[in-house]
Amino acid sequence: MTDARRGSIQEITPALLPAAQKRLSQVITKVPLLQNTPLDQLFNCQLFIQCENLQPTGSFKYRGASNAVLGMLESAQLSIAANSGVCTHSSGNHGRALARAARLNGLSADIVSPHNAVTSKLEAMRAEGASIHLCEPTQAAREAGLQALVEKGLTAIPPYDHPLVIAGQGTWALEMLNQLENLDILLIPVGGGGLAAGTILARNLMQQTEAKTPLVIGAEPEQADDCWRSLQQGQRVKKHYPDTAADGLRALIGRLTFPIIQAGITDVLRVTEAGIKAAATLATVHLGQTIEPSAATVLAAIDEYPEVFSGRRVGLILTGGNIADE
Amino acid sequence: MTDARRGSIQEITPALLPAAQKRLSQVITKVPLLQNTPLDQLFNCQLFIQCENLQPTGSFKYRGASNAVLGMLESAQLSIAANSGVCTHSSGNHGRALARAARLNGLSADIVSPHNAVTSKLEAMRAEGASIHLCEPTQAAREAGLQALVEKGLTAIPPYDHPLVIAGQGTWALEMLNQLENLDILLIPVGGGGLAAGTILARNLMQQTEAKTPLVIGAEPEQADDCWRSLQQGQRVKKHYPDTAADGLRALIGRLTFPIIQAGITDVLRVTEAGIKAAATLATVHLGQTIEPSAATVLAAIDEYPEVFSGRRVGLILTGGNIADE
Repeated sequence: MTDARRGSIQEITPALLPAAQKRLSQVITKVPLLQNTPLDQLFNCQLFIQCENLQPTGSFKYRGASNAVLGMLESAQLSIAANSGVCTHSSGNHGRALARAARLNGLSADIVSPHNAVTSKLEAMRAEGASIHLCEPTQAAREAGLQALVEKGLTAIPPYDHPLVIAGQGTWALEMLNQLENLDILLIPVGGGGLAAGTILARNLMQQTEAKTPLVIGAEPEQADDCWRSLQQGQRVKKHYPDTAADGLRALIGRLTFPIIQAGITDVLRVTEAGIKAAATLATVHLGQTIEPSAATVLAAIDEYPEVFSGRRVGLILTGGNIADE
Repeated sequence: MTDARRGSIQEITPALLPAAQKRLSQVITKVPLLQNTPLDQLFNCQLFIQCENLQPTGSFKYRGASNAVLGMLESAQLSIAANSGVCTHSSGNHGRALARAARLNGLSADIVSPHNAVTSKLEAMRAEGASIHLCEPTQAAREAGLQALVEKGLTAIPPYDHPLVIAGQGTWALEMLNQLENLDILLIPVGGGGLAAGTILARNLMQQTEAKTPLVIGAEPEQADDCWRSLQQGQRVKKHYPDTAADGLRALIGRLTFPIIQAGITDVLRVTEAGIKAAATLATVHLGQTIEPSAATVLAAIDEYPEVFSGRRVGLILTGGNIADE
């Protein structure tokens, strides 16, 4: 099954990543890798923590959104001259990231958002110049709203199931792998799978030149474990009723992202809601970072699966810091 | 009045800063300058926000402590061979920073702390290998405890009134000034004045080669306004009864730092406790940074004095993120 507009699995290769990294070099913030003695002692491992919550718009999503906009301008799938614009449906980080990427490249951004989305997130999208189209909070209403925009001639840029989005998300891992040697594990949260797939591509790129490369391990809320169940069953599950505070991880694992994850991930660790909450507090107290529940899942995994991480050198990402202010 | 052990005001010149920057280049984290569209719109100015809360030990204090340790090793005021060590009194960030700087340079660190200090801060100092000496929570007890350590042969490194500490703190501003052009204002919190004095030295260094340089403006809690009152009176005040949540800014303005501040600061803006609290929330919501009340004073100043900041390009520091976890 392929979809000409969105791309096929065959075209998603590690070779997309260096091009993405080059495009992003001028728009991405060089964020620090934090190390923290008390956390290392607590978990008995060596953590390297990449603060992607410090990216413009507050999350790693700016990588994928920017790479998609820049890459599609290059290939003339988008054009400023034609006064074209981009659109998506989003209640949060992808919409905000896409709005900024569009604005900085002279394009309009139209975002379909459920009317119960968090006010501060809607305001952040508007602050980046987006036009917001409120809809009923159902998947059907979101997709219908998006379809109407596409029919007006706008170009849809999905949150994860797109080769350029996946490649953009993977660039965080390229940066980390270029800075650190002998990492044992790369640890990422799994939602729709764009970040997980991109991270696997980055590791696979490294395998072309290095003998030893890190394992890629995912963290997923127990109460939104569609990726874990899909791996168990050997195919994407269809039933998915997420019930987690990690709002960024409620999406169903993607059509394009799942096969990459299936081929390249070592394990997906399911974490509890209590663990997510406790891990967010650890990030606040030890790292001074306010992170979203979705971002806290990786620290929760380290806490709940010591047998996986003890004694290891672990590179992990803090994916985002956009919490509700109400 | 001079004090041979601690240095005199005459020896504190902008020339100390490039040497400090060179020493710190391998030990300091290259932290990002954040920009945030919603915050800029809220305040009608352009903010460049340097996240010194991301430094090792969670605050800018690691700059001054590291510069002091490294500089004193260079000049043989400290020696690893002699098995010497450093000491200070601290309930927080300076002690933790000094403990790490000492440990990484093969020195012991003995810290006198009040027995009512926050447990997590004591634990963080111990995690960096410090020996903690608990004392009564009075200035007299802290100084007596420190004196006992000095008499044992340990070298005291004070939190702000020391040329190498002041120069180290100022390096944050050198980094910012090297990255940005046409800043109108550098904005810093004022406690003991080490950061303020160092920032003024950095700006003065820039004045040697540039026609236009930014103003240096301080933020101070209304309820710990010893620097503001000292500037009004033309000399250091003696009475000081701080009553602010900004625990890092309760110290009395220093003997060495005050004359530098008096000569070089444009204004000190006094902020309310309510403003500090609201500003910390802004940092959490918009920047994803958990910052200490002391660090929040600069955002509070921008909120409470729009006539000073409106339309300006403002470089500010987030000084630290170590909050209590209890």
